[in-house]
Amino acid sequence: MNASIITIGDELLIGQTIDTNSAFIAQEFNKAGIWVRRRVAVGDNAEDIETALNEESKQAQIIILTGGLGPTADDITKPLLNNYFGGKMVMDPNVARHIEYLFREVYRRPGPITERNKKQAEVPDVAKILHNARGSAPGMWFEKSVDGRNVVFVSLPGVPHEMKGLLIDEVMPRLLKHFKFPFIVHRTAFTAGMGESMVAERLLDFEAALPRHIRLAYLPSFGIVKLRLTGQGRKEQQLTEEVGLQFDQLTALLEDIVVSKTDEPIEKIVGHLLLKQQRTVATAESCTGGNVAHWITRVPGSSAYYNGSIVSYSNIIKEALLQVPATTLRTQGAVSSETVEAMVKGALQQLGTDYAVATSGIAGPDGGTPQKPVGTIWIAAGNQDRIVTRLLQLRFDREQNIEITTMQALLLLRKVILGLEG
Amino acid sequence: MNASIITIGDELLIGQTIDTNSAFIAQEFNKAGIWVRRRVAVGDNAEDIETALNEESKQAQIIILTGGLGPTADDITKPLLNNYFGGKMVMDPNVARHIEYLFREVYRRPGPITERNKKQAEVPDVAKILHNARGSAPGMWFEKSVDGRNVVFVSLPGVPHEMKGLLIDEVMPRLLKHFKFPFIVHRTAFTAGMGESMVAERLLDFEAALPRHIRLAYLPSFGIVKLRLTGQGRKEQQLTEEVGLQFDQLTALLEDIVVSKTDEPIEKIVGHLLLKQQRTVATAESCTGGNVAHWITRVPGSSAYYNGSIVSYSNIIKEALLQVPATTLRTQGAVSSETVEAMVKGALQQLGTDYAVATSGIAGPDGGTPQKPVGTIWIAAGNQDRIVTRLLQLRFDREQNIEITTMQALLLLRKVILGLEG
Repeated sequence: MNASIITIGDELLIGQTIDTNSAFIAQEFNKAGIWVRRRVAVGDNAEDIETALNEESKQAQIIILTGGLGPTADDITKPLLNNYFGGKMVMDPNVARHIEYLFREVYRRPGPITERNKKQAEVPDVAKILHNARGSAPGMWFEKSVDGRNVVFVSLPGVPHEMKGLLIDEVMPRLLKHFKFPFIVHRTAFTAGMGESMVAERLLDFEAALPRHIRLAYLPSFGIVKLRLTGQGRKEQQLTEEVGLQFDQLTALLEDIVVSKTDEPIEKIVGHLLLKQQRTVATAESCTGGNVAHWITRVPGSSAYYNGSIVSYSNIIKEALLQVPATTLRTQGAVSSETVEAMVKGALQQLGTDYAVATSGIAGPDGGTPQKPVGTIWIAAGNQDRIVTRLLQLRFDREQNIEITTMQALLLLRKVILGLEG
Repeated sequence: MNASIITIGDELLIGQTIDTNSAFIAQEFNKAGIWVRRRVAVGDNAEDIETALNEESKQAQIIILTGGLGPTADDITKPLLNNYFGGKMVMDPNVARHIEYLFREVYRRPGPITERNKKQAEVPDVAKILHNARGSAPGMWFEKSVDGRNVVFVSLPGVPHEMKGLLIDEVMPRLLKHFKFPFIVHRTAFTAGMGESMVAERLLDFEAALPRHIRLAYLPSFGIVKLRLTGQGRKEQQLTEEVGLQFDQLTALLEDIVVSKTDEPIEKIVGHLLLKQQRTVATAESCTGGNVAHWITRVPGSSAYYNGSIVSYSNIIKEALLQVPATTLRTQGAVSSETVEAMVKGALQQLGTDYAVATSGIAGPDGGTPQKPVGTIWIAAGNQDRIVTRLLQLRFDREQNIEITTMQALLLLRKVILGLEG
């Protein structure tokens, strides 16, 4: 079962918007056994949208369109779809009522509803209308015969949380009813401490011996590598067992570098550990400027194990709030093993937790010296008994240096919690 | 001048990776007057890559390919391009030397260089090789006549910082030499406090009266709306003046909601203000969990005006480190105007700054009550003389609630710095 995603909007082609919708749709489809063969982004241009509809429907049985449904003048998608599928525009009373409700009860907008917003209740009569609980533009489901095949076209708004809600609540259940999909089984291992090419070298024989219906993918990001096995088949239980056996082989080959055998981000892995051991953590951040705290707290429920952070972006704060000794800052500098160790101690005390993590370094682009060039970063993690520090020498831009440091700090915390670091 | 971007990699089609490269390329092209007409993502599949090359080169004169050049077995792009352009693979001594240098001097890898990495020095003899200062996979420039037109194909690695470096240092200068582009002039206004459809309503006549070579785009994100005018023409000075006059009209129509007349993010706008007034700021964060600090510190040089943050994810920390009175927390609750006001006071004192910003709320998905449902968030900004608080009632998911709160907190800080909030 092949699908194509068509994203519509000039903002995608001028680089203003990063397309996160496609990744979300692809993930959901992938779980369900629908293979996204192509993703195409086109502008708010009738000819280009129509070309994309024609081209993609030759290859795919499911076409998801996102964007182009908003209330502003540059949105031309709805009338175009109406013509493409040979319908006529009609006022949908349910959508009209929902828009009325949103503007009165949810947005609590004073004054009359604009004509542009009212017009969002006009829909092609050939579409099945999908209820958008989170916004005013409804989803639309069309079907058309292309070269004798029944092709489903679904048009969704581009606002991410509206699109996500519609996809999960309305589109996926209908697709699963409409088509018969093969089963898909994924297993993912999270590894750290070895580069992609070294991992690939070690897995040469394993990969060559994989059966055709099981694929291995390398997913590197922020200095770690995830490995995903994907199997496809008709018999669910047999497939699950097969992929499971291959996954056991894979993780045995990588035993020294496996962090987790689930597809979860590091902040969730650490969160599970802390919950299980009923321990708490705090952070003391300099160069990561609050990003370690941000990663930890984007996990719902993190307040159960996370107390807080002191972001000490100046030496005065390192001294005053984290009790880093002035002599340490003077003799060793803020970017030193001694400073991050003192920051961990200060955080443990000030924030009253079992564990603490600290970062201090030069994220760039400025601030480097010959002794401590940009990318020189110290991290530390520990508890009352033991603090482990580590030097990172990164060579990326400011943003990536911050992200990689955050990842490495949480990996170090995990090792300390598990007693793996000597 | 039309361009297409082809991104290659299964990771894009299973939703593992969010494609940030395309947005970066589109931004750079847009600045130079190259219109990206389509973006296509395909998997690591020879047939699909070839189809994309054929289709896109019918429409576009510049094709940028990213990804598929890594050292692992699933990367099939280079041999495919070699066949597509009718070349043969040869060892490039410069690339070989560069790989040797990277592994020995930069990555400092012990042991021999793997065969996979060595192979990255093999390139098609029909390609012009573009030096990748940041990694081992070189860029490649091909030319081919398609329907009598000369089409340029540039293949770049998918690692973002390598791709960016190659694009800026090697690709853009060559493209500008190779083609004659029209001039492009952009002007962007940052507005806050009014929804996209209301702004569009107000600009109805203005937009209708725009000349054909000047376009208006709406760029909403995180609860704000940016408006961009883009003009295209042959005479640079005349175009700049024309777009400037239209931009003055536009911003005059939106005077009450314009935050900035430059295309900068809010954290930079606030940074400029603080630098100009030689003032400093600190943050005290609960529900944003360090994200306000993260936004502020992703600006290079922010240490000149930013001291730090206290992320108080528990009430104990709010009391102990931010001196929020226990009675306030008990009687008003952590999510209240009184608490964020006290947090600002505590941050001013503890972090020793001129201004402070605070956030406290229920980001979701859990933790809501009938009185304070998920999305109830208080923000505050102020100095020793005056603290302004504001209630947000958001209705998004956790991640978006955090991002929008961060945006609103920094917008409130700006108003307080400018004395605009009574």
